[in-house]
Amino acid sequence: MKKINTTAISGMQELMPEAQATFDRLKDKISEVYHQHGFLSIETPMIERSEILLAKAGGDTEKQIYKVVKTAETVDDADQALRFDHTVPLARYIVEHESALSFPFKVTQIGRNYRGERAQKGRFREFYQCDVDVVGRGSLPLYYDADVIATLLDVFSEFKLGTPVLARISNRKILSGFIAEYNLEAKASEIFNIIDHAEKVPEEKTKSAFSEIGLGSERVETMMSFIEIHGGRKEVVAELKNLSISNDTFISGVNELDEVMKLLEIDGYTESISADMKIVRGLDYYTGTVFEFNLSEYSHIGSVCGGGRYDNLTGYFTDQKFPGIGGSIGLTRLFYVLAENNLVKSQEEKSVDVAVIPITNDELEYSMKVAKEWRGKGNKVTVVAGDKRLGDKLTYAAKIAKNAIVLGENEAKTGNYEVKKFN
Amino acid sequence: MKKINTTAISGMQELMPEAQATFDRLKDKISEVYHQHGFLSIETPMIERSEILLAKAGGDTEKQIYKVVKTAETVDDADQALRFDHTVPLARYIVEHESALSFPFKVTQIGRNYRGERAQKGRFREFYQCDVDVVGRGSLPLYYDADVIATLLDVFSEFKLGTPVLARISNRKILSGFIAEYNLEAKASEIFNIIDHAEKVPEEKTKSAFSEIGLGSERVETMMSFIEIHGGRKEVVAELKNLSISNDTFISGVNELDEVMKLLEIDGYTESISADMKIVRGLDYYTGTVFEFNLSEYSHIGSVCGGGRYDNLTGYFTDQKFPGIGGSIGLTRLFYVLAENNLVKSQEEKSVDVAVIPITNDELEYSMKVAKEWRGKGNKVTVVAGDKRLGDKLTYAAKIAKNAIVLGENEAKTGNYEVKKFN
Repeated sequence: MKKINTTAISGMQELMPEAQATFDRLKDKISEVYHQHGFLSIETPMIERSEILLAKAGGDTEKQIYKVVKTAETVDDADQALRFDHTVPLARYIVEHESALSFPFKVTQIGRNYRGERAQKGRFREFYQCDVDVVGRGSLPLYYDADVIATLLDVFSEFKLGTPVLARISNRKILSGFIAEYNLEAKASEIFNIIDHAEKVPEEKTKSAFSEIGLGSERVETMMSFIEIHGGRKEVVAELKNLSISNDTFISGVNELDEVMKLLEIDGYTESISADMKIVRGLDYYTGTVFEFNLSEYSHIGSVCGGGRYDNLTGYFTDQKFPGIGGSIGLTRLFYVLAENNLVKSQEEKSVDVAVIPITNDELEYSMKVAKEWRGKGNKVTVVAGDKRLGDKLTYAAKIAKNAIVLGENEAKTGNYEVKKFN
Repeated sequence: MKKINTTAISGMQELMPEAQATFDRLKDKISEVYHQHGFLSIETPMIERSEILLAKAGGDTEKQIYKVVKTAETVDDADQALRFDHTVPLARYIVEHESALSFPFKVTQIGRNYRGERAQKGRFREFYQCDVDVVGRGSLPLYYDADVIATLLDVFSEFKLGTPVLARISNRKILSGFIAEYNLEAKASEIFNIIDHAEKVPEEKTKSAFSEIGLGSERVETMMSFIEIHGGRKEVVAELKNLSISNDTFISGVNELDEVMKLLEIDGYTESISADMKIVRGLDYYTGTVFEFNLSEYSHIGSVCGGGRYDNLTGYFTDQKFPGIGGSIGLTRLFYVLAENNLVKSQEEKSVDVAVIPITNDELEYSMKVAKEWRGKGNKVTVVAGDKRLGDKLTYAAKIAKNAIVLGENEAKTGNYEVKKFN
């Protein structure tokens, strides 16, 4: 009889061991690929002073933050909260440790973040984010934009999901310049916001949203055909140039997009990338390259990875310039949608390689010896001890292990035993 | 110019990338050894309902807890807090998911916990604990006590610290029975507490502590000679039996200690274990085997690992019995003391294997190709892009990488290049 509610708190993922093993395998793979591309791991505290977290945030973020209150009288009582992403703590870390770091600083952070969102299916209040960032001091070559996207593409190819991933890339300067060309700067943030949501609503809704912010029907059509532009680098760059827009920001955005995609083509990613004017990213700290990844055959699950360039990451903490390019895989949500779509189920397997089963306690000593031998050969091995009947021990072993070795009097005497493989 | 205080919050460890790599290597090693011994990973949320965390706690723990308060109006507002260990969440997990688990459940949890302790050198408010536990349903064979201790000993031997580790083992029933034999049950918790602190204070202080709780001088001497008992299994068991104590709990404690140590001897750990009556463990949920690990040559650092058997883990959550045996490595503190004593310094090495350096942007394409080849051979590789002078690029490469490949016009043309090893 339960005496108390023992469910996990709503919005927090809690997995059974088999699913946890699959989750961990994805997490380890991400970390491995990030390291292969020369990113260094760091870990910042889960708790930050609120003034750090809220230096910029405001709005939704501030509403979703978890404040932390110590109950002890013995400790200082600064206003503290749980981090909601890795980007703000990274900015603090870089400003704090700047003199001890080498730039460009290629860095990865893999850990949990917290947002008190409204609880709903597939949305989490505690979630893993797996970030890569390259941060320069003063300046940062465009090469690293391609480097980050290539790294993230390699992660998805290593996941072996059996379905292709597409990196959809744009550059915020293109849309900014486009908006300026048509003297719509005053409505820029609304326009970014409408385009950012365009894929989640019917086309008519996007049109009427443009109308509602005061665009005439001709401008609405201009915007609608602009956001339809997508495809291979050469076609998209040609199409954008054909718009004959003279705004400098626009031109520099098109050139940067061209350059980043060219580098990715050189690196062998031509089939996995697409230029796409619908990609703008909601967060207003992005200043150049922006990207989102989709699983082409599962477009309903939305983006599985995203990121971009932010030239003013540390602006709230210091006057020094640290431009960066970063991307993030929201692993908790990704794992949830992959499982929902049966894209990871097949990777689940039992974690223990061999269960060694002494038939009676007389064979425990020999079982420990056999277990040690198999462990020495790199296997994950457990001994099933105790007074239970052999049948019960085998049932247990079949649930946790891939193989069993049953040891009775005869096996202990002769040293010969069989390895039984479970299906 | 900094505009804001960017230090990490006091009591939270924040490492430079090189130290982080060493920390992560230890953490990965722990996880690897735990898995080799057949433990399955789980991860519970960092946030729990306070009624779960405080079901038993009280006292110091309650004072040190971090409460969590959501600021959003949209979400429910239950009383929540950050977990302070893995044991309470494990108890909740087992009661909640009991029907989906296989028992004995061999489980590991590696993650951060939170205690608002008074800030001081080497004490952390945010810290990693790396736990292994075996939990039975109804009962749990004594074999698993040895299994947990052997697993933890293997971790320390894999750390290759160059200094031996000693598992000091006792059984709470021995002291409980001893106390009962002398009719001191009313003072049991004070006696446990005095012995638990005996190694941190001068002998005289322990004696006077015994006197202060009302023990006569003869009883003080009885206690003082009892806690001095330590050494190999056979000697200690003989010495304990020589005390001619007839209390059943005492006898059963001695037999359990004998049995657990015998299993460890069979498994080859004779040199690494010692029976020791000073080991009692402070936490009152232990009911049988208790142990602490020390680095024999660095006794001033105190215990580096500890654990024990708890037969009533889930008692606050359910009427069902789930006896368990567990142990934990406090990795944040351990890493700190190992570094202080230069026991991990030598393991630090640069994380990137190869830095590929194009002399000018003309060689960027070829550099990406070379980087990809080296990455394909399992190396961690970065390309040092940008317009900086070669000297600056080499200085940067020397800081982050073990080797450099410098590529100029000639190398790009011929495909021949040298690998320069940094010291």
